Amino acid sequence: MADPGRLSLNTITVREQWSLAQCIEGCARHGIPAIGPWRDKLAEMGLAAAARQIRDAGLKVSGLCRGGMFHLPDAIEDNRRAIDEAAAIGAPCLVMVCGGLPAGSKDLAGARRRVEDGVAEILPQARAAGVTIALEPLHPMTCADRSVLSTTAQALAMAERLGEGVGLALDVYHIWWDPDLADSVQRADRRLPCLRLAGADAGPGARPGHDG
Amino acid sequence: MADPGRLSLNTITVREQWSLAQCIEGCARHGIPAIGPWRDKLAEMGLAAAARQIRDAGLKVSGLCRGGMFHLPDAIEDNRRAIDEAAAIGAPCLVMVCGGLPAGSKDLAGARRRVEDGVAEILPQARAAGVTIALEPLHPMTCADRSVLSTTAQALAMAERLGEGVGLALDVYHIWWDPDLADSVQRADRRLPCLRLAGADAGPGARPGHDG
Repeated sequence: MADPGRLSLNTITVREQWSLAQCIEGCARHGIPAIGPWRDKLAEMGLAAAARQIRDAGLKVSGLCRGGMFHLPDAIEDNRRAIDEAAAIGAPCLVMVCGGLPAGSKDLAGARRRVEDGVAEILPQARAAGVTIALEPLHPMTCADRSVLSTTAQALAMAERLGEGVGLALDVYHIWWDPDLADSVQRADRRLPCLRLAGADAGPGARPGHDG
Repeated sequence: MADPGRLSLNTITVREQWSLAQCIEGCARHGIPAIGPWRDKLAEMGLAAAARQIRDAGLKVSGLCRGGMFHLPDAIEDNRRAIDEAAAIGAPCLVMVCGGLPAGSKDLAGARRRVEDGVAEILPQARAAGVTIALEPLHPMTCADRSVLSTTAQALAMAERLGEGVGLALDVYHIWWDPDLADSVQRADRRLPCLRLAGADAGPGARPGHDG
């Protein structure tokens, strides 16, 4: 059996069953040492109360889900709020579901530039807050509507262009099919030591993202 | 409007409406110069009758759909029959939907080896028949059950390892999301001049595959 000391409960997995308060209690009760909240649960509970209860329960935060969605008009402002929330709950990273194509657009290259430009715009704030921007490649079936970042190599290249304060979030659910998976994950793991790549890799660490 | 002289009717697009005989008549009536039959329609009509009617209608054959499915137990024999059928109707290529994971297996690397070994096994017969084996990368959403070949670069690398008589079939429906699409298609087009890459590329040529 896997070491439960490596587990983090991503709140989306019990979205229908538990409030964030129940998630925190559940983690404590079952010996799960970390939690990965989604912003909907956080908003529902209230940021200050959530931060306090997580701290009081002795839980680590693996990451906040999610930022991104740069194809939407208010993306920059929303991502700025997400960075503040991540900092408030002590999340080391903000997991990015980067966004798809704007309505009616087929400009995939443009959408990818928009993601990179958007991350560049919020990056100084994230660096100042100590929140790593964790780019998450999503399965190509989501390319049009949720993430124009589809492969680990593509996300790694973008992360390296953006520089310090950007890492990856890798979820085997999204990247298992990739013919370059092993190479890309090994390269990412060597080059972005600041962020654990779990769910798709060996090595201890929390699992920063799930679907979304 | 696109040049109708570049069109080929892939019979899967009218699978529910037309028999192969009706497809052939329809192509002739509408000035579509080529046809891409599927083997189900071919079997239904009978190989000799189909070959004769296609020839009599003055149609070119863009390719036969499909070979592959190397995860199935009888794949080699079935692919040998497909090569014979392709030769009989004058198809320049056999489009390969390469196959997914064997039932219960999660050995993706093994499944990819099985595809490559399978093509290598039938390749001498294909070369002798003058039928190009056209590897078709399919969208990663089909990776488990239909094609462990997911990207153009992956298919190109396999085609080059296999050597003479192997090309690609590229369908924009399957490969549009690929961050390396432009580079991969350009490389493929330079290195495999024997096979037109249409549906995903400029340049005249028939469109050898569709979904499947």
